[in-house]
Parts: sequence; C-alpha cells; structure tokens
Amino acid sequence: MTYPTDLQRRVDDYLAGLGLNDGPGTAGLSEAMRYSLLAGGKRIRPVLALATAEALGRDPDDVLALAAALEMVHTYSLIHDDLPAMDDDDLRRGKPTCHRAFGEDVAILAGDGLFAEALFLVLDRQAGPPANVLAAVRELTAAAGVEGMVGGQYLDITAPAEIGPEDLRRLHALKTGRLIGASVDAVLLLAGADEPARIAYHRFAAELGVLFQIVDDILDVTGDDAALGKPSGSDARHGRRTYVSVLGLERARELAGESHAEARAALAQAPGDTRRLAQIADYILTRQT
Amino acid sequence: MTYPTDLQRRVDDYLAGLGLNDGPGTAGLSEAMRYSLLAGGKRIRPVLALATAEALGRDPDDVLALAAALEMVHTYSLIHDDLPAMDDDDLRRGKPTCHRAFGEDVAILAGDGLFAEALFLVLDRQAGPPANVLAAVRELTAAAGVEGMVGGQYLDITAPAEIGPEDLRRLHALKTGRLIGASVDAVLLLAGADEPARIAYHRFAAELGVLFQIVDDILDVTGDDAALGKPSGSDARHGRRTYVSVLGLERARELAGESHAEARAALAQAPGDTRRLAQIADYILTRQT
Repeated sequence: MTYPTDLQRRVDDYLAGLGLNDGPGTAGLSEAMRYSLLAGGKRIRPVLALATAEALGRDPDDVLALAAALEMVHTYSLIHDDLPAMDDDDLRRGKPTCHRAFGEDVAILAGDGLFAEALFLVLDRQAGPPANVLAAVRELTAAAGVEGMVGGQYLDITAPAEIGPEDLRRLHALKTGRLIGASVDAVLLLAGADEPARIAYHRFAAELGVLFQIVDDILDVTGDDAALGKPSGSDARHGRRTYVSVLGLERARELAGESHAEARAALAQAPGDTRRLAQIADYILTRQT
Repeated sequence: MTYPTDLQRRVDDYLAGLGLNDGPGTAGLSEAMRYSLLAGGKRIRPVLALATAEALGRDPDDVLALAAALEMVHTYSLIHDDLPAMDDDDLRRGKPTCHRAFGEDVAILAGDGLFAEALFLVLDRQAGPPANVLAAVRELTAAAGVEGMVGGQYLDITAPAEIGPEDLRRLHALKTGRLIGASVDAVLLLAGADEPARIAYHRFAAELGVLFQIVDDILDVTGDDAALGKPSGSDARHGRRTYVSVLGLERARELAGESHAEARAALAQAPGDTRRLAQIADYILTRQT
C-alpha cells in the first residue's frame, strides 16, 4: 500500500510550474484555475499515467504533459460539479469551492479554461509521434464527453432514487471510471503499444475506475471529516445514489474487495513491470481519504 | 454580398447528421446539445473554414469535421455565456436559451459536452496527415482557451465601465475574434500551407473577427428585434462595453468600413482563389442580422 509519492511530487511540481497562458487582464481567471488545480489531492490520474509509462519501460517524465492534462480535466469537472446549479458544494479538499472563492461566473470560466488549456498543453508539448499524440488526446476527449465524464454527470443529476446496481455501475463508469481508465489507456496509445497489451491494461484501468468509486462512496459514510476535506455524509444529504445507498455498506465493502481482485488479476496479464500500478490499486482499496 | 449559402447548407446537413455519442440514459443531454447546435444561424465560422479550403483548391467537404467542430465550440460558448451567472439571457436566435429550455445544470453540461465532442469529432474523423490534424486542433483549443474565447469572456465580465478603445479591441479579439480567426487559420494548418500563405490568411482572418464584432455591436443598437432573434439594445441593458458605447455609432460605422477595407487588403495578398472569402467579408460588413 505504498503510494508512489515520488511520482505525485513530479506531477505537483509540473502543475505548479504551468504557465496557463496568462495575459493582460486575465490574471484573475488564471488565479481561479490555479486555486483549484493546486489544491492538492493524491493526483491519482496523473500518477497512474506516470506509473503506466514506467511499466512500459519509459521515463515517466516523458508523459508529464499528458499526465498534467488528465488532472486539469479532472479539476475542471470538479469545479463544474460543485456549482450551485449542480451539487452546490461549499467545500472541496478543505477549502471553499471555486465558485465560493471567486464567484459563479468566474468558476464556470475557470472550468472551461482548464479544459481548453489541458488539451492545448498535450497538443503543444507532449512528445511522441503525431499519430500517437492524436490518439491519446482523442481518448482524453472521449473520456470527457457524452460517453464519459459529462454523460456520467448527466446520469447523476437525472438518476431516479430507485436506481439499480447495473445503472449505478454505468453512471459511475462514465462519471469517474472513464477518465481514470483513460489515464492508463492514453499512455498505451501514446507509446504505440500493441493491441493485446492495450486490452490487458484497459481491463485493469476500467476496473480500477470502478474500485475507486466504490471506495469513495464507502469513505463518504465512514470517513473522517478533516481527513476528507469535506463533511462526510454529504452524498446522503445530497440524495446521491451511491454504492452504499443502493447496496448497503457491507455489500459495498465486499464489492470493493472483488473489484480490487479483478483489477489485480487483469494487471497480472499485462506485459511490463506493473508493480507500482499494483501498489496504486492496493492504495485505492485501503485509502482513508 | 452573396453569402455562400451552398456551403452553409453543407454545414447544416453535416451538423444535423452528427451522432453526438448518444448512449443509454443520456438522450436528454444530447437533446439539449442539439437544441442549441441546430438553432440555425449563418454558420459563419464553419462556412469560413469551407471557403478557405475552397480557396486553397481543396474540396470543402474534406474539412467538414473541423468546420462542424468550430460551430460546436461556438455554440458551447453561447450556452455558457447565456447562463444566469453570466449574461442571464432568455432568448437566443429567437428561442429560449438552453438553460431556459432545459435547466441550468443541463445547460452547463450541454456546453461542456459540445466542447468535448467537438474536439473528439476532429480527432476521430478529420482526414489529413496526423501532424496537420494535431496542429489544427491545437489552434482550436488555443482559440477556446485563456488567450482566446474564455479569456475574452472573463475580460467582458470584469471590464470597467470606462474601458478604452484598445482594451475593448483586445477583449473582443479574444472573445470573438480568435475563434473566427481560427476558422481560417486551422484550415491552413490542416492543409500544411507554407508560412507566407499562413501569415496572409491570418491577417485577413484576424481583421474579419474585429469587423464581425463591430458590426454586431452596431446591429444591437440599430437592428430589428425579429430579425436578430433577440431584443435589440440588450448590450446597453446589460451594461456591456461595445464599440458603439465606447466610440459612438458614427465612429463605430467608420471603423467597420476601415476594418473591412483592411480585411480585403490582407486577402488580396493571400494566394489562391479568394473570391468567396471576399464575399463573406462583404456580407459581414453589410449584414442586417
């Protein structure tokens, strides 16, 4: 359960050094973008990307632009999900949410800006054969779109109270799982890996996305407020359908264990030195925040 | 002043046939995206892209994916700009704005979804050498980002009442001009045009963006409500800084003429058969809606 904090640090340093295209008069916008982007967190998506590069025998630094973009897209989605018209959340990672700190209009634009600058960053800076960079960015935009993050958030705000386990799984697979999966898949595409390798890693990555969400739902019930950076129980107060509310805490915990085992089994079929990816899977299962 | 309605029709047909990645449960989201995307309009950005392809001796149909993406990015920006936290507009192209028709939460996601699907569309379907496609999409994301559309909208919501002509020009150059410019520039990049050609077309496209906004501001004061699809005078009611409010109607009209002359002069230096692009410039100067 040793989280690769060395990779996390590389991501944090890279994000902190990003220019974000500051220009005359837009410093306030960049400030709001940075406020949310540099609010901390485990950086699971970019760390997954770096660890995947490592597993494939490449220098993790080679995929930093792509990794940073994954975190920027994730941050953009958090900012928009927190908006008053959506989840109306006041706290995120222990700090006021972006719209609480900068106003709703600036928060909408900060999210929009992070999305645009994330893609620009990869297209402008990510090294690799153009066809591979293109495939990686295509994967990233698919994960962010209607069959990914945005579609999942739509399912979340429209889901009936009596949602079944299958629909719940699809909701989270789109909303959270797809981008976590893309954090692995996009690196395989960038590296030009062959199809058997892509399939094995994809099975791992997709299951990891499921695992992440189940644990997230459990932590919302059992977690410590200070450690979470937001009040626990917020899912229930928002009337959200979670693995715990639909299946109960005990079954959710079992499911987390099963999902973790499946992810590890898929990883065992994947070529390369996947030890650090296995550690990330273990961390996701046992994390307390 | 003959607008190339044949190109406009090709764009409309292509947009109407787009799949937008419909999946189980997200039909309502796609409906909101289509509602705004298919609300009509002159399709100036994609028509510019097609006319630029034509000027370079290529089949306009070859750039339809890129052209459609430009309109989708434009539509996404309109949806977000209309939101209650931003301009709080009720009407757009004669119909209720997206958030009036579908709710604020769905409208935010419809905008986000259009942006993601726009980029996915180009990366998935636009033919051309990967390096060129990549350069074109990079241009599109730059035009949408902090040094483009999003930055311009931020300048707009934060601009002081006593903004000067230079700052006003920069505001609009980012908010509107950059994406109009990209509608031409991205096609040059896709075609792998040489630098002298790119520079000449860029000068034309950048000036066309300025011209478009000046005329837009004039029409808001002088235009007919029904033809505009929204009440005229809405800029003044919103306290917006416009070319007319800052410079007066007469000077704004002079400036439109000067800007048009500059755009035509730049176009005269550009290689290729640029007659239809010249017609678009003439149309933008003399349009009544």
